[in-house]
Amino acid sequence: MAKSKNPKEAIEDLGKGIVKDIMKGKQPELEVPVRSLSNVEFNKKSGTLELGNKMSQRQFFNVAHAKKFLQTIEIAKVTKDLLAVGKHASLRDVFYMVKRTIPNTKTDIVEEQTESDKAIEDLELLTEFSREQLNINANKMGSVAGKVVVEDAGDTIDWSRLGSGGWSIPSNVENIKFKKVDADYVIYMEKAAVWERLHEDKFWQKNNCIIMSSQGQTTRGIRRLLQRLSDEHKLPIYILTDADPYGYYIYSVLKFGSINLAHMSQTMTLTNARFLGITMDDIEKYGLQKHFIKFKDVDVVRLKQISEYEWFKNNKHWQRQFKMMKGYGAKAEIQALSARGISFISDKYLPEKIKNKDFLD
Amino acid sequence: MAKSKNPKEAIEDLGKGIVKDIMKGKQPELEVPVRSLSNVEFNKKSGTLELGNKMSQRQFFNVAHAKKFLQTIEIAKVTKDLLAVGKHASLRDVFYMVKRTIPNTKTDIVEEQTESDKAIEDLELLTEFSREQLNINANKMGSVAGKVVVEDAGDTIDWSRLGSGGWSIPSNVENIKFKKVDADYVIYMEKAAVWERLHEDKFWQKNNCIIMSSQGQTTRGIRRLLQRLSDEHKLPIYILTDADPYGYYIYSVLKFGSINLAHMSQTMTLTNARFLGITMDDIEKYGLQKHFIKFKDVDVVRLKQISEYEWFKNNKHWQRQFKMMKGYGAKAEIQALSARGISFISDKYLPEKIKNKDFLD
Repeated sequence: MAKSKNPKEAIEDLGKGIVKDIMKGKQPELEVPVRSLSNVEFNKKSGTLELGNKMSQRQFFNVAHAKKFLQTIEIAKVTKDLLAVGKHASLRDVFYMVKRTIPNTKTDIVEEQTESDKAIEDLELLTEFSREQLNINANKMGSVAGKVVVEDAGDTIDWSRLGSGGWSIPSNVENIKFKKVDADYVIYMEKAAVWERLHEDKFWQKNNCIIMSSQGQTTRGIRRLLQRLSDEHKLPIYILTDADPYGYYIYSVLKFGSINLAHMSQTMTLTNARFLGITMDDIEKYGLQKHFIKFKDVDVVRLKQISEYEWFKNNKHWQRQFKMMKGYGAKAEIQALSARGISFISDKYLPEKIKNKDFLD
Repeated sequence: MAKSKNPKEAIEDLGKGIVKDIMKGKQPELEVPVRSLSNVEFNKKSGTLELGNKMSQRQFFNVAHAKKFLQTIEIAKVTKDLLAVGKHASLRDVFYMVKRTIPNTKTDIVEEQTESDKAIEDLELLTEFSREQLNINANKMGSVAGKVVVEDAGDTIDWSRLGSGGWSIPSNVENIKFKKVDADYVIYMEKAAVWERLHEDKFWQKNNCIIMSSQGQTTRGIRRLLQRLSDEHKLPIYILTDADPYGYYIYSVLKFGSINLAHMSQTMTLTNARFLGITMDDIEKYGLQKHFIKFKDVDVVRLKQISEYEWFKNNKHWQRQFKMMKGYGAKAEIQALSARGISFISDKYLPEKIKNKDFLD
């Protein structure tokens, strides 16, 4: 199917295709790529995890397929309605909107949110638009500051003039218009507390950059915002996390993708992202071994998994970090830098790393 | 000790008191209220959980006290430095800043963050200033929108003109200056997705109110912001959560306090807060029983605990909710309202509840 011009048209085209099948006396059928591990592969050329070519059919007159077929069509209907009124719904909202009993049966269209989530993924693949473009939102999280002016929902917002709080990143950043972007790079950090440190130190002003953080997981809103800044404004993206398997995993997912996001790798991965810190070498360089936190069993397992990733296993720089971490049997937090002084991270650590291009790829 | 004029003076007064003891040949001693369950009581007059009168001493020449004494003094030093340079640190930063080995020993001043956190609480009690006022920050989380203009960190921020994101609430809101507050009430909601729903529907504009959310826990920054709006601008605070033991617990902590916050009940509890929804009666009224989620064991236990809280046990309105929930053996989410339509919450549910003053106290 050729890509439709816009999400609304894509949903309509999907419906028209089904009507056409029915008119021809053919049974309605949807064809979507298989989204299991067996059909996920690392594309060395693009450097991202992608779906392979295996396809699966959803046929209406097939007892094993009928429910999934119906779920996908039902989600398409909800999406059509959302696009028509210009409103957005969360994944959870959509679940409740489609969770109803099929008339004259005791069967619900969906029983668990995983079912509606999967049907939404189907629709992403069938229409070639992301669920954000289909007006279905991810979680909202995170803050941003920098010399950037955007237009969003009728307002003009200057990211450099928002006090100590910054702009609260929406779950859906598809409709944001960049009016001014004055920055040399973007730092994305795992921890909101580190963001507050850099913000209070006016790091973005002194170093002409954008600072962005979540608290916990990297939401799709944040990913897309990073990707848009990278694609549309050619800004390098630097990732700042703890020196632990989880922090390195955050970087891995952002840059190379994940199995869950394999079907969205084109719009969701940051192939130009670089890892800024903190590395095990940083810990040694600044004498922070005292602040190591001993590995738990889960860390050992996670580290082993990551070190075997296809994109890391022949990367000697990353293998060096993994080996050091394994050797110490310990991890360290970014805030350990505070032991060297409250603004050590802003005044010395980050400027030196960036000046010396001391990144991991 | 009489309350000092400002945090800086309070820290200095603390130091002067110790010097005075030393000069007199007395051993230095700090006296702080006991912060265990045995010394927490529900003050019926103020309607909050508070610390009782039991005091404990920290003496310098006492093997059992010396370390805690030292920790408190060390934290006081860090705080003094932060106040001097006008910078803020997170709890985790402070932990790393005080985590050092005492010269000529193998003993660290603190080994775990719980130790520095406890010492910070001591300092809150000794100085009668919150840790935010002592420049130590809580976690950052949450968004806010409404017809409000604030001054913060040199910027003027209009909460009504921040696009779909809203203002990202800082961890520390002590220094925010309210320049304009045009609102009849504040709705605080547990879920960011619900906030985005109300924000997209321009609920705050149509209903002249402020909408605020976190994602997960209610941070101290959010509590304080709610409390300042309640105290300084006499705005009623309405709480919107899931109909589950956890949601009702969120309300309970906000309004009546918690054991952990007993020492801060004056600045951290919202004695005027009212519970807006969703209630078990709402579920019945709008026919949402289909969307019940069956209790797990932990829900049963939690519900029993809450229903026995001193402030709930003689409240027939709350007991009615608890009884209904127990009867159904099920809970429901706020997003279940989406089953009635994407903007049902904005167009019907909330306006009706507020118009009919259908609150729980």
